[in-house]
Amino acid sequence: MIYLDNAATTFPKPDIVYDTVMNVMKDFGANPGRSGHKLALKAGRGIYDTREKLASLFNIKNPMNIIFTYNATDALNLGIKGFLKKGDHVITTAMEHNSVLRPILGLEQKGVKNTIIKCDQKGFVDLDDIENAIEANTRLIVTTHASNLTGTIYPIEKIGALAKKHNIIYMVDAAQTAGIYHIDVERMNIDLLAFPGHKSLLGPQGTGGLYIKEGLDVIQMKEGGTGSKSHELIQPDILPDKYESGTPNTPGIIGLGAGVQYILDKGIDNIMKHEKELLKLFLDGLKLIDGVKIYGPLDPEKQAPVVSINIGDEDSSEISYILDNVFDISTRSGLHCAPLAHKTLGTLERGTIRFSIGLFNTKKDILSTLDAIKKIAIEAM
Amino acid sequence: MIYLDNAATTFPKPDIVYDTVMNVMKDFGANPGRSGHKLALKAGRGIYDTREKLASLFNIKNPMNIIFTYNATDALNLGIKGFLKKGDHVITTAMEHNSVLRPILGLEQKGVKNTIIKCDQKGFVDLDDIENAIEANTRLIVTTHASNLTGTIYPIEKIGALAKKHNIIYMVDAAQTAGIYHIDVERMNIDLLAFPGHKSLLGPQGTGGLYIKEGLDVIQMKEGGTGSKSHELIQPDILPDKYESGTPNTPGIIGLGAGVQYILDKGIDNIMKHEKELLKLFLDGLKLIDGVKIYGPLDPEKQAPVVSINIGDEDSSEISYILDNVFDISTRSGLHCAPLAHKTLGTLERGTIRFSIGLFNTKKDILSTLDAIKKIAIEAM
Repeated sequence: MIYLDNAATTFPKPDIVYDTVMNVMKDFGANPGRSGHKLALKAGRGIYDTREKLASLFNIKNPMNIIFTYNATDALNLGIKGFLKKGDHVITTAMEHNSVLRPILGLEQKGVKNTIIKCDQKGFVDLDDIENAIEANTRLIVTTHASNLTGTIYPIEKIGALAKKHNIIYMVDAAQTAGIYHIDVERMNIDLLAFPGHKSLLGPQGTGGLYIKEGLDVIQMKEGGTGSKSHELIQPDILPDKYESGTPNTPGIIGLGAGVQYILDKGIDNIMKHEKELLKLFLDGLKLIDGVKIYGPLDPEKQAPVVSINIGDEDSSEISYILDNVFDISTRSGLHCAPLAHKTLGTLERGTIRFSIGLFNTKKDILSTLDAIKKIAIEAM
Repeated sequence: MIYLDNAATTFPKPDIVYDTVMNVMKDFGANPGRSGHKLALKAGRGIYDTREKLASLFNIKNPMNIIFTYNATDALNLGIKGFLKKGDHVITTAMEHNSVLRPILGLEQKGVKNTIIKCDQKGFVDLDDIENAIEANTRLIVTTHASNLTGTIYPIEKIGALAKKHNIIYMVDAAQTAGIYHIDVERMNIDLLAFPGHKSLLGPQGTGGLYIKEGLDVIQMKEGGTGSKSHELIQPDILPDKYESGTPNTPGIIGLGAGVQYILDKGIDNIMKHEKELLKLFLDGLKLIDGVKIYGPLDPEKQAPVVSINIGDEDSSEISYILDNVFDISTRSGLHCAPLAHKTLGTLERGTIRFSIGLFNTKKDILSTLDAIKKIAIEAM
């Protein structure tokens, strides 16, 4: 089996992630931060270790400013809806995932206005368009780091600088990049960073997080038991407790820590190099196949290892089905929860077939996949 | 080691739960409901299986009315804040956990009024007090099924009937009972049922759920990718998609399914019988120890297997520390995130030591614990 659906969730995970999850569940599966006994303390320390590792990876000064969430969507909702208030204006782009667009559009009825910047056919955004969209009440800019449809990489450092210049808060959706590309919240001026744990950070599903810059006023989405200030009937105002009510996903979070440690040990540069090599091999091969329409930048330097294509006039889900059932290659077809991005590409009707490369893919995987696409394309002609 | 902190999270889990989590992660760790390939479909089916098992356990007609959440707190917030609107009135009790009280009190500033019914010293609520608190705009009654502090069991079927009589929606917090006691949403007239996955349902942490009665208007807390109606920029209005944005905790949810299947196979009656026997043994033993103050009903028929005590004038955390470090017994001290319940008991200052029994505890565990308490009580005199 060749798994090329890593943009949805990475598979497999490093063995140390499986082992860690099992170890937590079997050896100290207690409730962290609630009780004071040995197992509970060990669980609490494990969760703190993951915070520290993520802080190291993203250059976050204080690990307590990292909030663990259910997934990246949860983190995006918390940041967007917790920060924006009635009368505010927010800028985002047409390449965003529904986890950004739907919360932002949902806020319209609460009196939060938005501007969705159009992108070019390769998915690139023009910085001038962002700057021109700034209004007196613009309080937030939200962009992806890389499109989940075309892989198009956004110049987040430049957008961060632009936001800073105008005294606007900048939120980055790192769903497709955390764990593959360098992300430095200080240098890039990122005030809110949402990330999934189960994609390129190599952790288990049921994990994600939001970095909230010190002092930023973000209202929590949930209240409950925090294991702190239990005598008070109002939610405590300390981080991360304010945002982390209830029992966390201890095995998942500590497993995520093992994934992040694996990345720190391997080095982001090496991971990026490997994925770029495979991406280049794939793009170069695809360009030679007649009948294949490739979307996005077609440039490994300008796109994350995510490639969307169509073959002839075939339905994307039909091709994805054949890839799975005839060639045992897992891909994703359809709209990938990014309708405006498809509008940008002109693929809203038929969708695309998406191939997303992960750390554990090999050159052989890519060559076999190119071979399969070639065969399908010949059939389709 | 004797683990008596099962009210915080059950430990250990049945082997089949560990095996299932690992099997999902290693064999089909894909993203369910997003892609159409074999692994993704298998993950999606696994999640649906868990819905069906929970529906069977709680007598829920349509499994799609079960929403998976991060934990019970997440479910309580969704139900309480998603249902109540400005101008509404909600009734709850002083024995509730902060995961009920904090969201309800937080809604005050949004114009939702509340009445918190006082309970007697054993934690019991008077049904007449609930009925007398009903106002013209009362739209919701929220109660726990059993106190997390004293185990006091609430007559949820009677409260459900009362709510129905007055055309009020009834929400139950089953954090301490789901998996031990019979819960039948139809017979008991429960409109909203919040439950954790990682307590007596024996699933992994990072799981929980909310049953929402068909047709009930509950606003989602999050919007995002749902794998359905991806072309639309507004959140789809179908269950469970409306409330389940982003990648779910697939290994956790399918692992929870294994836990629920374990319960269905063993039978709730047998589980209840085992835990009641141990509870009786523990209560009977405790009553004989000089210097021990026991809170709550002191009756296995009227309380879940949760027992709070204090010894002499000792600090609860000190005793819990000794139990852990000298006798290797895991308990919880402090306020247990239930401040008004402690006010009811008169223990807000010093807290209590809580012993919570689980399915895998044995008579020997209880006898050893009684022995340890005896020794500590003699020292303390």
